[in-house]
Amino acid sequence: MTSFFDTDNLHQHISKQYDHELLDIRNRVLTLGGLVEEQVESAVTALVNNDVELAERVIADDYKVNSLEVSIDEECTQIIALRQPTARDLRLVVAVIKTITDLERIGDEAKRIARLSIDLASHYPKKNQLTEVEQLAKNVRGLLREALDSFARMDVDEALRVVQGDRMVDREYESIIRQQITYMMEDPRAIPVSLDIMWSARSLERIGDRSCNICEYVIYYAKGKNIRHISLEQVEKDLRET
Amino acid sequence: MTSFFDTDNLHQHISKQYDHELLDIRNRVLTLGGLVEEQVESAVTALVNNDVELAERVIADDYKVNSLEVSIDEECTQIIALRQPTARDLRLVVAVIKTITDLERIGDEAKRIARLSIDLASHYPKKNQLTEVEQLAKNVRGLLREALDSFARMDVDEALRVVQGDRMVDREYESIIRQQITYMMEDPRAIPVSLDIMWSARSLERIGDRSCNICEYVIYYAKGKNIRHISLEQVEKDLRET
Repeated sequence: MTSFFDTDNLHQHISKQYDHELLDIRNRVLTLGGLVEEQVESAVTALVNNDVELAERVIADDYKVNSLEVSIDEECTQIIALRQPTARDLRLVVAVIKTITDLERIGDEAKRIARLSIDLASHYPKKNQLTEVEQLAKNVRGLLREALDSFARMDVDEALRVVQGDRMVDREYESIIRQQITYMMEDPRAIPVSLDIMWSARSLERIGDRSCNICEYVIYYAKGKNIRHISLEQVEKDLRET
Repeated sequence: MTSFFDTDNLHQHISKQYDHELLDIRNRVLTLGGLVEEQVESAVTALVNNDVELAERVIADDYKVNSLEVSIDEECTQIIALRQPTARDLRLVVAVIKTITDLERIGDEAKRIARLSIDLASHYPKKNQLTEVEQLAKNVRGLLREALDSFARMDVDEALRVVQGDRMVDREYESIIRQQITYMMEDPRAIPVSLDIMWSARSLERIGDRSCNICEYVIYYAKGKNIRHISLEQVEKDLRET
């Protein structure tokens, strides 16, 4: 009996440590998410305020995002090798590996926006030229925030709302592109400013797409379903039926 | 003895099947790679020849890339769950999971180029306006080819050559952007054509970046080193020392 009891204790101990490791990678994803959110916020502030110093700080801080991503990635591979997770635990680890890739790439987009804002500042844009892109940035940051929330709570309904919200962001992005083309054709001197605005809008739109990717991993974790490449309508129908 | 012999046979049998599974995911990555290469080639042909029909076929065929990627992804998760790979085998499965994500996104860029080529065709561009983007496409397709070769043979030296080659592609891309800005400023009527060329060049440059990502996974598999976010000079130095 004693031997059995000991083994049981040992199993419980290992199991607790394993649970702790799974909790830890989830928490570290949220730390990375918070860091990436800050980078996006600073990059957008630098863009709309022509703040070159802030933009340079975003570029310099990108390494923090990269090294945290690499470290979480290594932790995930360690967990797979040592704990040999299956079912739901394995889905969590796979979801984490994929989520951090998207977060790191969102960090890259923030760096791109920061670089564009340095170029833009040299063209002295008028404040009102940036109103639409500022609005787009606000909505995209909202999507990223909600995507991270849905990850934190593994909340499928919230994840679906993000995918839905991204459609509005896509329409806003297309409207900015059309508007800037009109400006450029009316006044060729506006071309450098318009191009910086277009590229920034493009980076923001990509951040929206990547926020959706994160939501897809949340649904994959919670439901065991891979919903990539399926229309939103079909996904909602499928999930209602499960 | 018989019992031992039987178990041994069983282990050999399982091990052979497992080896076969690992070989199978590697082969399927190359099938996906070949499909993605075809998509990129057709999209570029559609772009330079104003071939709307071909562009529409690229867009329609994107689902093939997506479904193959999802299927390989599921096979990888199955292998992790059932075979519990460690060390080199685990690195292979992780490298495959990451490689197919990049291949699928290269497919998305091909679809983007196809869409742009449909828009471009409506503006009747002159053939010589596309010379530089055609050259860029040729070099990018070369990078993708080499990246897939380096994956097929898990060849670290070839992988490093791709990362090096991507630098030239980046310079070519920047030169196209500068050139198109000049054209646009000289003649605002050129703006729609120039923008399509710029966005296409951007997609091609992204395909180059993603080919480099694949090479980073090859190095990760072969050397167990994560070289992302490290300068090429540092990587070459590190690899010489190992």
